[in-house]
Amino acid sequence: MGFQERDVISVLQKIFATADSRLLVGIGDDAAVVTTSAQSVITSDMAVEDVHFKLEWSSAFDIGRKVTAANVADILSMGGKCDFLTASVALTGEETLQWIENLARGMKHEADLAGAVIVGGDIARGSKIVISMTAVGNSKSPILRSGAQVGDGLFLSSLTGWSAAGLELLTREISINSEIAEKALSEFSAPTLDYDSDFSQATAMADVSDSILIQAEQIAVASGVQLVLDQSLIAASPEFDELSQIASELKVDVMQWILAGGEDHVLLATGVNLPGVRIGSVAAGSGVTGVEIKMTPVSWSHF
Amino acid sequence: MGFQERDVISVLQKIFATADSRLLVGIGDDAAVVTTSAQSVITSDMAVEDVHFKLEWSSAFDIGRKVTAANVADILSMGGKCDFLTASVALTGEETLQWIENLARGMKHEADLAGAVIVGGDIARGSKIVISMTAVGNSKSPILRSGAQVGDGLFLSSLTGWSAAGLELLTREISINSEIAEKALSEFSAPTLDYDSDFSQATAMADVSDSILIQAEQIAVASGVQLVLDQSLIAASPEFDELSQIASELKVDVMQWILAGGEDHVLLATGVNLPGVRIGSVAAGSGVTGVEIKMTPVSWSHF
Repeated sequence: MGFQERDVISVLQKIFATADSRLLVGIGDDAAVVTTSAQSVITSDMAVEDVHFKLEWSSAFDIGRKVTAANVADILSMGGKCDFLTASVALTGEETLQWIENLARGMKHEADLAGAVIVGGDIARGSKIVISMTAVGNSKSPILRSGAQVGDGLFLSSLTGWSAAGLELLTREISINSEIAEKALSEFSAPTLDYDSDFSQATAMADVSDSILIQAEQIAVASGVQLVLDQSLIAASPEFDELSQIASELKVDVMQWILAGGEDHVLLATGVNLPGVRIGSVAAGSGVTGVEIKMTPVSWSHF
Repeated sequence: MGFQERDVISVLQKIFATADSRLLVGIGDDAAVVTTSAQSVITSDMAVEDVHFKLEWSSAFDIGRKVTAANVADILSMGGKCDFLTASVALTGEETLQWIENLARGMKHEADLAGAVIVGGDIARGSKIVISMTAVGNSKSPILRSGAQVGDGLFLSSLTGWSAAGLELLTREISINSEIAEKALSEFSAPTLDYDSDFSQATAMADVSDSILIQAEQIAVASGVQLVLDQSLIAASPEFDELSQIASELKVDVMQWILAGGEDHVLLATGVNLPGVRIGSVAAGSGVTGVEIKMTPVSWSHF
């Protein structure tokens, strides 16, 4: 490694530089000083090389985008706006300065989309790359998982399954030369968050980090209701035909990707007349019904 | 590993449970909801197994305390009070549930001392244990590194060098049966932060994470002044004789530990009539003078 920590810091300071008025003291002191509102939302998300991402599958830029998006999505799913991010990274020493710079650029790119500022972090040595981010946002009336009401509809900000499709193309080493396959690979590398969807009227919300089935179950438990999924509504959604096309080429049940696939980070919400795709409804009872796909067990996720 | 992620989460939820009124929504939703003041301070610090800590040297409880203390110290050194912490942990799968519980108990112990609440985090799989924490605090008038004034005194909240002494005992596998050696080992495993020292009148401040020499240099550069250390003042400080005693048993220059040793996380501050130990003064000029100890190069630290 032909560079020192101060070179890395100097690169990061340049990439994360901002004139944002919410940031009073930025990178370079013991802590950042920022302006916050009376009520803040805080979340953290960690990604580990060869567990959450692989260097041969994703560019540094996309890895930076993806980890940032995973953090931001948790703020969006509270009905909040992300203001500040910190990024702590363990590096192996095998990276080039260019790779680290691209990682930071990816973080900055997604932070810009979210309207958030990267205010600090830490660099450490490790045997694998580990990226740990924390997002701090604001929300006047946070939308919890516990607010779903019987009679609400169940909505997705956009169709899930794209990241799972991309993962399947990569793991099975299948190369399909089409715009749809490109989209799946791109969504796997770094999901497109639905920043423009206005879910402020949702009664309950979560982002789909693990899978629709898992997040729906969490909302059902927290709200004490039953979530009834409707496969015909899902099949009528705008992107369904595109996704079905790769699924049939790969001989995979598309509903498996849509319902049990993770990391799309779209919003799953209950409410009345929400935007996005309606995929079901809220009924009295418990659990998630209406579909026969089984949940893929997820061994380690958020707490 | 005879347990699942939900067992870990259930343990953490129990240990981190709180009725603190600053926490509106705790662990269990996509993000925590907290009350914040108009001005917040944010910092992150990451610790990697076999780089920052070794399982054979430190208990899980002490590792939890140490990482928490490193984060809290960065808030204290801004003249702030720590309110909230998040903890993200990569686990190898070799840990017992008891070990994870003790890690969390150590975090909670230090958070309680700081008056802070652990509000969330993440769990991931990794080939080494990685602990990444973020601290959010409040400070009405943050104390930066840049405020030192010519004529100020230079103060330490308490003597540094204890952690370096403990590290030396461990690396050289020397066992000394004395209270002083015990103190050094204990300070290495988890530093005692100087919560009761009132440094609110400091003109510039940093916590000694790397070493006095490195942090003094940072204050000197940021403030555009010279920091003049006085070894006779250091030698007159209350804990100096104790520390000198182990140093002479190990045939080490005690000033090397005090000036170039890291991880004590005590406060280094400039100002007039501050509490703690006066170790020098602020003069016109640049750099750190008055001592002949060389800085040990630190390859990876904070940014």
